[in-house]
Amino acid sequence: MSELLVNTQNGHLSASQRVPAIARPFVSERAMKTLDLVEKFVEEECIPADSVYTRQIGETTQQRFSAHPQIIEDLKVKAQKLGLWNMFLPKNHFKEGAGFSNLEYGLMAEYLGKSRIASEATNCAAPDTGNMEVLAKYGNEQQKRRWLDPLLDGKIRSAFLMTEPQVASSDATNIEMTIKRDGDSYVLNGQKWWSSGIGDPRCQIYIVLGKTDPNNSDKYKQQSVILVPHDTPGITIHRMLSVFGYDDAPHGHGHVTFNNVRVPASNMVLGEGRGFEIIQGRLGPGRIHHAMRSIGAAEKALEWFLARLNDPRKKPFGEMLNRHGIMLERVARSRIEIDAARLAVLNAAIKIDESNAKGALKEIAEVKVLVPEVNLTVIDRAIQAYGGGGVSQDTPLANMYALGRTMRIVDGPDEVHLLQLGKNENKRGPAHKQRIEAQTKKGEELCRKYGIEVKDKLALNRVSGKGSKL
Amino acid sequence: MSELLVNTQNGHLSASQRVPAIARPFVSERAMKTLDLVEKFVEEECIPADSVYTRQIGETTQQRFSAHPQIIEDLKVKAQKLGLWNMFLPKNHFKEGAGFSNLEYGLMAEYLGKSRIASEATNCAAPDTGNMEVLAKYGNEQQKRRWLDPLLDGKIRSAFLMTEPQVASSDATNIEMTIKRDGDSYVLNGQKWWSSGIGDPRCQIYIVLGKTDPNNSDKYKQQSVILVPHDTPGITIHRMLSVFGYDDAPHGHGHVTFNNVRVPASNMVLGEGRGFEIIQGRLGPGRIHHAMRSIGAAEKALEWFLARLNDPRKKPFGEMLNRHGIMLERVARSRIEIDAARLAVLNAAIKIDESNAKGALKEIAEVKVLVPEVNLTVIDRAIQAYGGGGVSQDTPLANMYALGRTMRIVDGPDEVHLLQLGKNENKRGPAHKQRIEAQTKKGEELCRKYGIEVKDKLALNRVSGKGSKL
Amino acid sequence: MSELLVNTQNGHLSASQRVPAIARPFVSERAMKTLDLVEKFVEEECIPADSVYTRQIGETTQQRFSAHPQIIEDLKVKAQKLGLWNMFLPKNHFKEGAGFSNLEYGLMAEYLGKSRIASEATNCAAPDTGNMEVLAKYGNEQQKRRWLDPLLDGKIRSAFLMTEPQVASSDATNIEMTIKRDGDSYVLNGQKWWSSGIGDPRCQIYIVLGKTDPNNSDKYKQQSVILVPHDTPGITIHRMLSVFGYDDAPHGHGHVTFNNVRVPASNMVLGEGRGFEIIQGRLGPGRIHHAMRSIGAAEKALEWFLARLNDPRKKPFGEMLNRHGIMLERVARSRIEIDAARLAVLNAAIKIDESNAKGALKEIAEVKVLVPEVNLTVIDRAIQAYGGGGVSQDTPLANMYALGRTMRIVDGPDEVHLLQLGKNENKRGPAHKQRIEAQTKKGEELCRKYGIEVKDKLALNRVSGKGSKL
Amino acid sequence: MSELLVNTQNGHLSASQRVPAIARPFVSERAMKTLDLVEKFVEEECIPADSVYTRQIGETTQQRFSAHPQIIEDLKVKAQKLGLWNMFLPKNHFKEGAGFSNLEYGLMAEYLGKSRIASEATNCAAPDTGNMEVLAKYGNEQQKRRWLDPLLDGKIRSAFLMTEPQVASSDATNIEMTIKRDGDSYVLNGQKWWSSGIGDPRCQIYIVLGKTDPNNSDKYKQQSVILVPHDTPGITIHRMLSVFGYDDAPHGHGHVTFNNVRVPASNMVLGEGRGFEIIQGRLGPGRIHHAMRSIGAAEKALEWFLARLNDPRKKPFGEMLNRHGIMLERVARSRIEIDAARLAVLNAAIKIDESNAKGALKEIAEVKVLVPEVNLTVIDRAIQAYGGGGVSQDTPLANMYALGRTMRIVDGPDEVHLLQLGKNENKRGPAHKQRIEAQTKKGEELCRKYGIEVKDKLALNRVSGKGSKL
Repeated sequence: MSELLVNTQNGHLSASQRVPAIARPFVSERAMKTLDLVEKFVEEECIPADSVYTRQIGETTQQRFSAHPQIIEDLKVKAQKLGLWNMFLPKNHFKEGAGFSNLEYGLMAEYLGKSRIASEATNCAAPDTGNMEVLAKYGNEQQKRRWLDPLLDGKIRSAFLMTEPQVASSDATNIEMTIKRDGDSYVLNGQKWWSSGIGDPRCQIYIVLGKTDPNNSDKYKQQSVILVPHDTPGITIHRMLSVFGYDDAPHGHGHVTFNNVRVPASNMVLGEGRGFEIIQGRLGPGRIHHAMRSIGAAEKALEWFLARLNDPRKKPFGEMLNRHGIMLERVARSRIEIDAARLAVLNAAIKIDESNAKGALKEIAEVKVLVPEVNLTVIDRAIQAYGGGGVSQDTPLANMYALGRTMRIVDGPDEVHLLQLGKNENKRGPAHKQRIEAQTKKGEELCRKYGIEVKDKLALNRVSGKGSKL
Repeated sequence: MSELLVNTQNGHLSASQRVPAIARPFVSERAMKTLDLVEKFVEEECIPADSVYTRQIGETTQQRFSAHPQIIEDLKVKAQKLGLWNMFLPKNHFKEGAGFSNLEYGLMAEYLGKSRIASEATNCAAPDTGNMEVLAKYGNEQQKRRWLDPLLDGKIRSAFLMTEPQVASSDATNIEMTIKRDGDSYVLNGQKWWSSGIGDPRCQIYIVLGKTDPNNSDKYKQQSVILVPHDTPGITIHRMLSVFGYDDAPHGHGHVTFNNVRVPASNMVLGEGRGFEIIQGRLGPGRIHHAMRSIGAAEKALEWFLARLNDPRKKPFGEMLNRHGIMLERVARSRIEIDAARLAVLNAAIKIDESNAKGALKEIAEVKVLVPEVNLTVIDRAIQAYGGGGVSQDTPLANMYALGRTMRIVDGPDEVHLLQLGKNENKRGPAHKQRIEAQTKKGEELCRKYGIEVKDKLALNRVSGKGSKL
Repeated sequence: MSELLVNTQNGHLSASQRVPAIARPFVSERAMKTLDLVEKFVEEECIPADSVYTRQIGETTQQRFSAHPQIIEDLKVKAQKLGLWNMFLPKNHFKEGAGFSNLEYGLMAEYLGKSRIASEATNCAAPDTGNMEVLAKYGNEQQKRRWLDPLLDGKIRSAFLMTEPQVASSDATNIEMTIKRDGDSYVLNGQKWWSSGIGDPRCQIYIVLGKTDPNNSDKYKQQSVILVPHDTPGITIHRMLSVFGYDDAPHGHGHVTFNNVRVPASNMVLGEGRGFEIIQGRLGPGRIHHAMRSIGAAEKALEWFLARLNDPRKKPFGEMLNRHGIMLERVARSRIEIDAARLAVLNAAIKIDESNAKGALKEIAEVKVLVPEVNLTVIDRAIQAYGGGGVSQDTPLANMYALGRTMRIVDGPDEVHLLQLGKNENKRGPAHKQRIEAQTKKGEELCRKYGIEVKDKLALNRVSGKGSKL
Repeated sequence: MSELLVNTQNGHLSASQRVPAIARPFVSERAMKTLDLVEKFVEEECIPADSVYTRQIGETTQQRFSAHPQIIEDLKVKAQKLGLWNMFLPKNHFKEGAGFSNLEYGLMAEYLGKSRIASEATNCAAPDTGNMEVLAKYGNEQQKRRWLDPLLDGKIRSAFLMTEPQVASSDATNIEMTIKRDGDSYVLNGQKWWSSGIGDPRCQIYIVLGKTDPNNSDKYKQQSVILVPHDTPGITIHRMLSVFGYDDAPHGHGHVTFNNVRVPASNMVLGEGRGFEIIQGRLGPGRIHHAMRSIGAAEKALEWFLARLNDPRKKPFGEMLNRHGIMLERVARSRIEIDAARLAVLNAAIKIDESNAKGALKEIAEVKVLVPEVNLTVIDRAIQAYGGGGVSQDTPLANMYALGRTMRIVDGPDEVHLLQLGKNENKRGPAHKQRIEAQTKKGEELCRKYGIEVKDKLALNRVSGKGSKL
């Protein structure tokens, strides 16, 4: 069976063989081996298990959000035995992880993205990954022992509560949740939604962004991050949000209210007013993880697409789909788009490895916009090839589309990243203008030198250099 | 002045600093230095000279196709002094070049692509580059001394005659030009068009693809490549083709007829029937050159775009263009698309360096389709920002668009590459189908193991595994 | 309240006022009045009722597919009182309907498309509409009394069983369901899926397409249409298919098996071998209905989009969304695309009115491809503006997207229509080629007449006229 | 020959038969007949004459801008004999024209758009058309006799000088050309570019927009329109602008300077401060003319595309292009897009006919953005099918692309129209928001009435109705 799933015949290349040539210098031998192991684990263990997991969750809302499918725990045991555990924690900054760089983990995340449960099975699932990074990087010893250790062991799960329904919360300065000091406690009031993972019965700790100092003149010092145990009085998981009809149970996306939620002052992370700093550091690598999983999803969609093209029973106009140029063009475009997008993600990962998330702002933003578009385009093409099967439960495609669609929204919608990127690029505009005008001027000097009369006295750049009036 | 053109202030990064992180391990120190030199040479010398060159060509057709602007020779002297000469010849295969890899030259070609004449000024202009490669790789000693040496010295120019008007000649098996042995000679008959560079008075040698054995049952052995001096009797340059309204003089694109054109048998390259092999090897690196010059063109268009956004006199709706979100979005998308496309080209260049053009077929085809689309999209956005200035001679944009548009056609139109890519990807289809079905089957076995009844007996993949009837 | 919902202040135009100028000559006064009534009924009654309906369906699968929300019956009573009943039956062909043309009903269908339940509330819901047309047009008296009458009265519902999972059934010649004569009965065997509406407990009659004569040399005579009561032994509704994560209960999309299903021979419609003819006639108007409801969905999405832009709490970068050019551009493009698409649908409706579905093949195919693309694009833009709200149950957008996505698949996927359209257009190709060559030749004669020498003897069209060799 | 060019065999439909069903009620019998005559004249006379005209213009710049090809005058004689003269002047407003509505002329303009010279041959060429409308509508008797009469007779040509290089002149309030009263004269100073038609030796009158009262607090009263004879001292046609390498000679696009240009005060049109009013009225119908000619260009491109698909010598991958699905898809999409765009233009024309340009603002803006995009897309596809032939002089496609590209710029770039459209749509936003909230509220009331508990107290629209805090 094993040979069947990831066979090495028929020209199949293993995951390590498929690492783009340009990325290879950045991947250690050990990472290469682990990468192949990840592929094997995902294709042979996780993907078949996806259908078990889906069925073990149950039917009614109550069942679904109290489900804890056994198969995920069985897979976790297997993964730990294989050494496939906590690969996401970058070796440069954390001793707790498996010792890989962001680039190396990125390559693995592509394969994790092909299965619904592979990330959790290897303890590399969002939002735990980002939360563990926060605790490992910013938490004090007490916080680490209490929450980081069980998270690293996969014993509990966690949620990150940032997004709010009533403001444009992709800009953290708009956050309205209040965190007020009251003696030895902090008291939280407000609401959060898209609190992902909060549905899981094992989710025991919420990392919450709120404002301790809403009137601080420096609007990036108003926010703080605080740890809130899931069973603190005053918290109500009001309802679960759906994504194109999917509830993503038991994980789920909660709409939560905080009504005088009181936690010990020692639960503050890093200190009051450090919230913005914390979330900035948290988001970078997480976006790379999302992006590489999306690349994996796109590859999976393309694989399903290709499988369909080779279904001998589907012969519109009397010819198998793989004889239809329309389909082959879409396959080719998908291949081109995925491959270019992957390189962009890997380059961003290397930038993070070489500096940090801040040093890779541009590259991360590019990937944040580019990858979901590619992923959705490829999935949509595969859906279309399957017709009714594509939108239904008979393929994973519609569910992948729904998940992929949220990637254009989470961690800031496309538009925020596009505008920010555009503004940053625009900073170079005046220098470009100056250089172009200088080149025009030098060109005219050269003309005179070569005895050529310059007749276009009114050409755009000349006029531009001189002011608009004659 | 020099500081002005490539200034290092205002956060301007030099060419070597802008090499993507992921590509750096492949670039030697010497290449990094040369790269900065190329940028400086292009920005400070070549771009200002472009306008001189344009004006020195003249007005009437006859003038234009006999022009030899002095400034190009002056630049060639400067370039040789700076060591910027023949950088395109990859060090792995040729001792005659400047000793760079395809990847390293690719990075330089980006900057050459920003000027109309920089490639020629550094003896890196098509079609001479590909022709020199052919001669260096496949020519015998006599052929090399007679034609390769003066080409390497930039003393003469050359043309490659492959495309024919009356057939789909992107598929070389359709070529109709005949090359018939007659004693110690070969006699050529037929017509060629898009014979680029043939208009230049310095173009002295044509490398011609034709058929010596049109009835060979192996259709890839029918073709041969032969050297034809430009002044051989029987050749008529019938007319010059325009690209949009540009004649690209003096270079030009000729429509040529061969009427009993007789050359010595010793002009045959490599031997009869080796033509297909020769052109296969010729096209790979050339496509990378084109692609990286296109990336440079796109960067230049983006620079002009940004310059326009910062023109204080242009204020539609009362605000400068750099305050308009529509414009900033286009800037951002351009940045994203260019950066991803560049990585794809660099990765393809590395694949060629590590094997050869044949080993990089997929990567080259991807780049061949992706880059021109990105380039045209970015140029078009810049044109739109300039309005009337964008389509006119006041910016280089319209001319760049016309050139960029041909890149979707030369060396095989998009569609040929898309279909070929699609067909190659499709070869993996049956294996994907088999794996998906095996995963489905294993999933069902797992379900039974976990005591779950599988109800979807009619689901797509199960049915697929069993045949269509119940 | 009523004034609030469809207010006539603030420049709001009523439905009849919004009828495009070009369509007005085709709309009777009575239709104009009914149109305004439809808008009022939808906006004031149906849309508010949508949320009741959704909640009355229940939670478990069993509940959901046996639900019959009371509110739909209450709305039906209201609709009948208002005379809004069976508007879809075109006056040219049927006396049983409300007496409107396809164009007039198309205008109304746009508004019905804004509510989940408005079509059913006015007895204009698919697939009953097409089924009633089949029965009215092709059914005999007995069949009409038994099934058409209760359908016209909204007492029962119906399904149309055509699509099969294991073949490319958009081409009816591939159908595999068998219908075999056996004495006074027909016996059916095979499977169907995407049997929409079959989940509804009130669905009592299935109109089934199968093959009575699979070996007929005329492959358009192999098919027949037969009536099968829902409770005939041998029918199993095996499972319900989901669309993205929606089950569309109680309507639903069934996967059904027929195992020796026996019905009286008198249930055959029109006669053996007439199946293709029947489905051809059935699909035309139905596609117009779908298309106009999609136009309504797109309008609704745009309205939600605009509402979001005016939410004072959402201020990314410190400005309300309606101050962001990126958003305004998307609004404008949506308006342009919807308006053009609507005109295409109305023109197709008129073509049907003036001839029939066959006479409007081209126009219907155009609309079949164009409208879903426009609809999905507009909805997607609205989703993006809402962020997390857009993909969740808090807006109707994600559900609309899922429904809209199926419109690229049902009644034949886009690709089938595109290829068919392309092939039909291509028939005009030889005539165009001939004309262009004749024009070229006449141009050359004119040149001679005016004393101009024609130099381009090798130009494309001249060569083309003469054969490829010199 | 005549039968060959517009043959009625092979299923060819005549122009009148191709009028969309939805537009027919608006077209008189006489217009139908004229339409067929226009098609015949264009296909049989004008298109063949295009190549003569092109060759008669000459080579050098001086020749080209003093050319007056005889064939255009010969065609004008023919056109007048056929009654094809001044069809553009709408019957509602002008007695001088041929008596057609904007809709009727729009249908004819589609065919005129297929030939380079057909518009001029029928005296329907821009910018004369708009200029004649201005003179007919706003000129006094003296102005009409002096300039309108010879224009109506096709004896002279004219230019409209509005665009200026140094400002965003699509917004007329930015115009900088000054018109100062000085005794019985006005004196003009400033520069204009894209003064189209100014190159023609027969161009004798310039209609100039400038500012007479630049400090008027009403910024729409600052402008005036004045008539300036071409030979008035102080005018310099500084240079001619190119469009993608084309000079559009002899028509041309001039860059013109005015240095103390003095004209009699009686040359003022309508009165000082009426300039904005005049250009507003001028632009509407002109945009419809442009749009319908673009539709004609797109149809012509599709015809050339189809002709190419049927060239038996072009067989990539061994099959004629018309067997390639990729090509057929593009044909089909072109057909869909052209047909929808045409309907949008015709609807806009009817809106103008029923009110005026102001009453059709939305429809005109939609068409202004939509049609050039469709046109360029279709031409680009045709270019790609022709490969090298597509970008060269061997097809009309590249030239058509260049012209089509300017249509995204002239009379205001796309972005201005998109933003304006977006802003106008946005005015309806608050009403939509109010209605949606009212519907939500009514839905909840209904729920209570039906005994359903409303649990989603935090859903988006409810919260939205109440304010953001709990």
